[in-house]
Amino acid sequence: MLPNGFKVGGIHSGIAKKDKKKDLALFISESPSSAAGMFTKNVVKAAPVLVDIERLRKGDKFFGILANSGCANACTGIEGEEDAKNMCLAIEKSFNLNVGSVLCASTGVIGKHLNISKERLGRSIDLLKNNIGVSIENENDAVLAIMTTDTFVKKASRKIEVASGDIKIWGCVKGAGMIHPNMCGPSTDLHATMLSFILTDAEIKSETLQKILENSSEKSFNCVSVDGDTSTNDTIIVLANGQSGTGELSQSNLEKFEFFFDELTLELAQSIAKDGEGATKFIEVEVKNTKTKIDAKLVASTIATSPLFKTAIFGADANWGRILAAAGRSGVIFDLNKVDIYIGGIQTFKNGKVLNFFEEEAKESLSKKEVKIVIDFNIGKENSRYYTCDFSYDYVKINSSYRS
Amino acid sequence: MLPNGFKVGGIHSGIAKKDKKKDLALFISESPSSAAGMFTKNVVKAAPVLVDIERLRKGDKFFGILANSGCANACTGIEGEEDAKNMCLAIEKSFNLNVGSVLCASTGVIGKHLNISKERLGRSIDLLKNNIGVSIENENDAVLAIMTTDTFVKKASRKIEVASGDIKIWGCVKGAGMIHPNMCGPSTDLHATMLSFILTDAEIKSETLQKILENSSEKSFNCVSVDGDTSTNDTIIVLANGQSGTGELSQSNLEKFEFFFDELTLELAQSIAKDGEGATKFIEVEVKNTKTKIDAKLVASTIATSPLFKTAIFGADANWGRILAAAGRSGVIFDLNKVDIYIGGIQTFKNGKVLNFFEEEAKESLSKKEVKIVIDFNIGKENSRYYTCDFSYDYVKINSSYRS
Repeated sequence: MLPNGFKVGGIHSGIAKKDKKKDLALFISESPSSAAGMFTKNVVKAAPVLVDIERLRKGDKFFGILANSGCANACTGIEGEEDAKNMCLAIEKSFNLNVGSVLCASTGVIGKHLNISKERLGRSIDLLKNNIGVSIENENDAVLAIMTTDTFVKKASRKIEVASGDIKIWGCVKGAGMIHPNMCGPSTDLHATMLSFILTDAEIKSETLQKILENSSEKSFNCVSVDGDTSTNDTIIVLANGQSGTGELSQSNLEKFEFFFDELTLELAQSIAKDGEGATKFIEVEVKNTKTKIDAKLVASTIATSPLFKTAIFGADANWGRILAAAGRSGVIFDLNKVDIYIGGIQTFKNGKVLNFFEEEAKESLSKKEVKIVIDFNIGKENSRYYTCDFSYDYVKINSSYRS
Repeated sequence: MLPNGFKVGGIHSGIAKKDKKKDLALFISESPSSAAGMFTKNVVKAAPVLVDIERLRKGDKFFGILANSGCANACTGIEGEEDAKNMCLAIEKSFNLNVGSVLCASTGVIGKHLNISKERLGRSIDLLKNNIGVSIENENDAVLAIMTTDTFVKKASRKIEVASGDIKIWGCVKGAGMIHPNMCGPSTDLHATMLSFILTDAEIKSETLQKILENSSEKSFNCVSVDGDTSTNDTIIVLANGQSGTGELSQSNLEKFEFFFDELTLELAQSIAKDGEGATKFIEVEVKNTKTKIDAKLVASTIATSPLFKTAIFGADANWGRILAAAGRSGVIFDLNKVDIYIGGIQTFKNGKVLNFFEEEAKESLSKKEVKIVIDFNIGKENSRYYTCDFSYDYVKINSSYRS
């Protein structure tokens, strides 16, 4: 259920070539909203990313997000930025909003221009305006319009009960390939295609919202990988319009909000790995007891992006040696004699030595839809979790002819 | 043709489970040789790697290299090291050599013990001793014995004419998967499975040989990637027995030697990418005009290991956007407006802008067996080349059931 004061929707505008595929989504608030954003650290940043960063740096109040699939509007130069701004402008005009108060996002093929005539854009915006609302259908239309190789609608919501009423958070995400988000806030000079839009009716300042988003993303979106390729378009935008009627969040309610926000981002992030291109299995890699947090994350991401590890899991092969080999090349120093490894709940390696385990049992465990790998270094107290999927024939199929 | 004073051979010992597959190779000199080595920087180092590093640090003169396939002897603890030393000892005894004068290398599944009885080892060494020689057949037997998923024998040789006679260099290499060598010399405390053995009858000090090998590897073996996974067993060993009869190399002859040595290592390194697991195409990624050498190599290796780039090439899809996205996430800072991209000789991107190019022409060019990609940053003078292959269905097939 959408938070108070928000409407969403999605239509077919023609930006995506595919016949009738919904390709343009709008997420809009009836009142000005605080906003927070995270964007790809890729040096090559798509036009909408550059536009959003500029707008979030300047402004404090926003009304909506216009997002398209079918074209990434990346590597399209100044012209691309103009196109992005013109898209926003059409919404701003149509809803009588200030210029700069609508944010944007794109996903699709890199290097193509949006290529939508003023006329067609106008017609599309009118259509969109008539197709926004608060129903489950509207929600699904909006998410369908930002999907590319995704196979299912990925959304999540939470309701937070506080003394003065209920606060709602609703979020959606798209992303199945070119997924290895590495994002940061708009205030730094850095920047998959992963798009996520989160709406809430909490009353919260942009600055506080930005901090919550950044902390939360480090444990969720920035811990997901499908193929190790960080996109030029990764974007998360949060809008908070304060329409819950519960007033500005108290410290204890803020903590509650943060708890549910973390739950929601984790659910969304995991759903990306579950829908990874060609994926047959969801994999959680847990790294335990390293000296530093950075070490834990580095090992986890190296294992989660190893083609040899991911093809082994596709084959339900308990090839723990590949887990160790990936850990060993991660750049983290450790003592092999202290390492323990668990695959699908079965310990295969203890204190640097191979254990006798039943291959059949391991195979059965690895044949499940969800697989958990644990590698425990026993040299510190820091932990990290990374979410990924297996590497299948279909990944190759999907990506050997994506443009055509 | 083998250099003077060397004999080589390969037999079936039973270490590899497969029926009659040759799995034990010997490369031996009739006289003491200088030696140089490079080993994986993976924190998890296989037992033979640890044994070789110790031996090269202590000793100066070596007689041979005993290498097996079918078992990596990695993650096997002290027992693994004892096994490796016992294998060497059997050769040392059989040929009346000092203990410690034979080096070793292994490739195969991680975590299994060599598991060869003293008796069987004895019989195998006897058989090997009777099957070494200088013929093309002996050469091929030796290389076949170290092959795993390799599909062809990879070897190269050079003859260097100097005033006082001829100097020969012969080298072989195995490796098709878990290939992303990142090696350094035995003197540092760091360390794929790529094995390469190079034999020469040049008269040259170990120290000089080590320097030549390290410089040469940085431009060859350390610039090859099949899957980005650095092995626990990567090993290059060079033996120089001085039997050419041309005396110690003069400075000018040393330069000549180095030139041909570089040619040989590059040929061997490229042959790995050509035989990459499931590869249908050999890819050369050339990065031009970056500010630093490290930048050039970092961009080249990031592109060469991008699953999205490699699947696109498999599909003969001129998806230059994926090249840019990979460059952008490499960590190197550049100005997009100065970037030029060429795919298979066709320029697709100039000064940060998409060019109109004929997709059909690009597709034809990318359908060839060898593909070259150039990305020119135009902000400096440093260049780098990286060698890889495309990412196909067969890569997934091979690696989803490697152990079984």
